[in-house]
Amino acid sequence: MAPPEDEAGEARHAEEGSSQAEMTAAPPLERAAGGDGRRISTVLIIIAMQTEALPLVNKFQLSEDTDGSLFPKGVPWIRYQGVYKELHINLVWPGKDSVLGVDSIGTISASLVTYASIQALNPDLIINAGTAGGFKAKGACVGDVYLASNVAFHDRRIPIPVFDMYGIGSRQAFSTPNLLKELNLKVGKLSTGDSLDMLPQDEASILANDATIKDMEGAAVAYVADLLSVPAIFVKAVTDIVDGEKPTSEEFLQNLIRVTAALDQAVNQVIDFLNGKCLSEL
Amino acid sequence: MAPPEDEAGEARHAEEGSSQAEMTAAPPLERAAGGDGRRISTVLIIIAMQTEALPLVNKFQLSEDTDGSLFPKGVPWIRYQGVYKELHINLVWPGKDSVLGVDSIGTISASLVTYASIQALNPDLIINAGTAGGFKAKGACVGDVYLASNVAFHDRRIPIPVFDMYGIGSRQAFSTPNLLKELNLKVGKLSTGDSLDMLPQDEASILANDATIKDMEGAAVAYVADLLSVPAIFVKAVTDIVDGEKPTSEEFLQNLIRVTAALDQAVNQVIDFLNGKCLSEL
Repeated sequence: MAPPEDEAGEARHAEEGSSQAEMTAAPPLERAAGGDGRRISTVLIIIAMQTEALPLVNKFQLSEDTDGSLFPKGVPWIRYQGVYKELHINLVWPGKDSVLGVDSIGTISASLVTYASIQALNPDLIINAGTAGGFKAKGACVGDVYLASNVAFHDRRIPIPVFDMYGIGSRQAFSTPNLLKELNLKVGKLSTGDSLDMLPQDEASILANDATIKDMEGAAVAYVADLLSVPAIFVKAVTDIVDGEKPTSEEFLQNLIRVTAALDQAVNQVIDFLNGKCLSEL
Repeated sequence: MAPPEDEAGEARHAEEGSSQAEMTAAPPLERAAGGDGRRISTVLIIIAMQTEALPLVNKFQLSEDTDGSLFPKGVPWIRYQGVYKELHINLVWPGKDSVLGVDSIGTISASLVTYASIQALNPDLIINAGTAGGFKAKGACVGDVYLASNVAFHDRRIPIPVFDMYGIGSRQAFSTPNLLKELNLKVGKLSTGDSLDMLPQDEASILANDATIKDMEGAAVAYVADLLSVPAIFVKAVTDIVDGEKPTSEEFLQNLIRVTAALDQAVNQVIDFLNGKCLSEL
């Protein structure tokens, strides 16, 4: 876990919302799988919602695991897998809650599937893809696709020294300057919480995190990826404007399908860029 | 995941704060390990803070795993284990954050260690023990030890139909009417969130959850235990009064050591009661 950034670190991210390569200053992830110069082979895509996942399953012609051997009995988690160009692609979706039938969204499911998938698949790189709320004050528009430079939590307030920083859990995403130069993605910081709505206190924390986008999984995926030393990147498409006029849930549902198409196109471009490269070339 | 209780369910819990066996109405956990009439053999105790864990490690003369084979490289999670009477006792503590050095508290670490420990140890029963805030309006006093009848989240607000119930994640604890008759523990509902403080919106959700006590791990442990069909109980000792005059963090730190002694005595009594029994005798 990285301590809050110093002023120099803040300055590096001053151009939030641009598509320039601000992440070049991130430290290399030395222990990373694939950090030895070999080409990326196994990619793990973590996606929280079925609506976001299925177009990619179709695009990459992935097959659903049906023997149930990858994850323990009882969990609703689903892995789709296949070979695309030179890559073994694994897309893991936490599935539907077995009683309520809704997507298992949020930080707990995201952290569990990230952990279990890393253990089972030993991926070279994790891509956490999904939809997010965006802040128009930071330049976000509906349909924009962001690559997160940094992730943190905004709903874990622990007002005891050092525990406060643990709660915020700020981490840098894996640095991908060449990917950013090549693809037309925006760059911004991501803030994660388990609520779809936003209380004034959440907003203050998101502001303190200097975030442009807000989701419900990113920082949890980052926490587990960091624990197990797997590089992770975060591709998030804006479904709703958090500091706008419309209620989040209404705008989110209204734009979900359309924005998912933009998200999937971006993930597709990222995958095409990864193919045949090693981590240090990203 | 159980939907919010109906009025009859509410009536069953009307005597919150008493030591009577309100949990007799809870449905049996039919798929539970050990539900076949054999004696409880393996117990998994999940404790978030070192201060809470070490007195129990000493009491039961547990040894720390030193070969590091139980959990993957990189995680700070620590298992202590040993044999006490007829029980294999495993106490798992999520350890100190490797960068910040503070206890890995909260729902993400709790869910991860619960998942990984169940996979590694296949326990018959989980005891999530820890400290909690208590509501004096519901009869809680500093030093009281509660057995939770029900757990839910208070900081996962998702205002979309059905997703709202997923966010709340209300679950009944494993029913232990005989344990309750034997031991002098209070009974109350537990509400879980990732913040030590409490916003007005958190308080409204805790009220809606009808909770007497508030912690930072319980509902996450319950979620994972339920996914993997392992019965779980929740023993929580009150360090601070949430609806009182003193700031939570100050009162929490002031009372932590003293209340931990009450917690550990209660866990000790629970373990002594379990010994030689099968799940259906609890």
